[in-house]
Amino acid sequence: MQPPHLQPVELSKAYRLLNHGPTVLVSARHGGADDVMAAAWACALDFAPPKLTVVLDKATRTRELVEASGTFVIQVPTLAQARLTQAVGTRSLHDQPRKLADTGVELFELEGFDQPFVQGCSAWLACRLLPEPHNQQTYDLFIGEVVGAWADERVFRDGHWHFQTAPGALRSLHYIAGGQFYAIGESVLVPGPTPD
Amino acid sequence: MQPPHLQPVELSKAYRLLNHGPTVLVSARHGGADDVMAAAWACALDFAPPKLTVVLDKATRTRELVEASGTFVIQVPTLAQARLTQAVGTRSLHDQPRKLADTGVELFELEGFDQPFVQGCSAWLACRLLPEPHNQQTYDLFIGEVVGAWADERVFRDGHWHFQTAPGALRSLHYIAGGQFYAIGESVLVPGPTPD
Repeated sequence: MQPPHLQPVELSKAYRLLNHGPTVLVSARHGGADDVMAAAWACALDFAPPKLTVVLDKATRTRELVEASGTFVIQVPTLAQARLTQAVGTRSLHDQPRKLADTGVELFELEGFDQPFVQGCSAWLACRLLPEPHNQQTYDLFIGEVVGAWADERVFRDGHWHFQTAPGALRSLHYIAGGQFYAIGESVLVPGPTPD
Repeated sequence: MQPPHLQPVELSKAYRLLNHGPTVLVSARHGGADDVMAAAWACALDFAPPKLTVVLDKATRTRELVEASGTFVIQVPTLAQARLTQAVGTRSLHDQPRKLADTGVELFELEGFDQPFVQGCSAWLACRLLPEPHNQQTYDLFIGEVVGAWADERVFRDGHWHFQTAPGALRSLHYIAGGQFYAIGESVLVPGPTPD
């Protein structure tokens, strides 16, 4: 079932879902297998069409599914999902076939996208892999074009995050190391010539 | 003059300076010219040797200096520098030769590095460009190897950020759009098998 607060995000605003540098969950599906991993190294790359980069280690099952299917989902987990994010980031589907059930990951479907979306996140970006074999082999660096974007309207609407007024459990996570994250903090507005 | 609280960071821990996704300042020097720009699209790429990616628009003077010198500095600005960060991100040295003075940027030097470092930041990563012409031309995507790293020991020491106990003015900035940033927030520790 789709999350009750999910709303589409204009593709021209999709970069804003990642612009503040959150740790993300990467999910992919191929041949009846779904996997979800955590990635601190994901970043916006372009505005229109929106593109992003993500680093996927060769040891991960998710990477194999991305390479095989040519598609993946980047989603922004919430403070309430800190334990889940750490868990999917430290266990492998290679070793633990029941990884998703064991880590509490619940998936949902979106019509027109044969990809696994993770329940409880604050934003979702459905991506098409732009194959760049040199980057993938040399740097583990993958480039995706964002072909669909959605957010939890309680925390992202009208093209902006509303962390300052949304429930605190919806704040984004920013991983450091050793199980330590920071949640995103307070809004800071610099007056200037570029309102939007 | 070097900032009083500047201390070297082990290269094996340098990725942690960027792992939480802060907006950064990019600086470069060539032929007697220095420039500094803001970039929300910078990301760690590897642990050892540490590498990072940064997106540099073709319109920027900083990019020209990076391409000509083969070196650049990525630094993490603080909450106290929000106005400076917005200013260097919206003005170009092409149009405004006194951009650095006008935006309040003060530079310092580090022995052995012929690069401009920005005063008042919380962390600095000196980088050597790893030329990848296809990425640079097609995606504006630049890859650097980190060859030196330093931090303000009041907020990063022993391989970890200490935002929760450092002065609030030293928190990192995470840009969204239209002059709006978020400061990094509270620390969240997930107990698990990966302490460090």
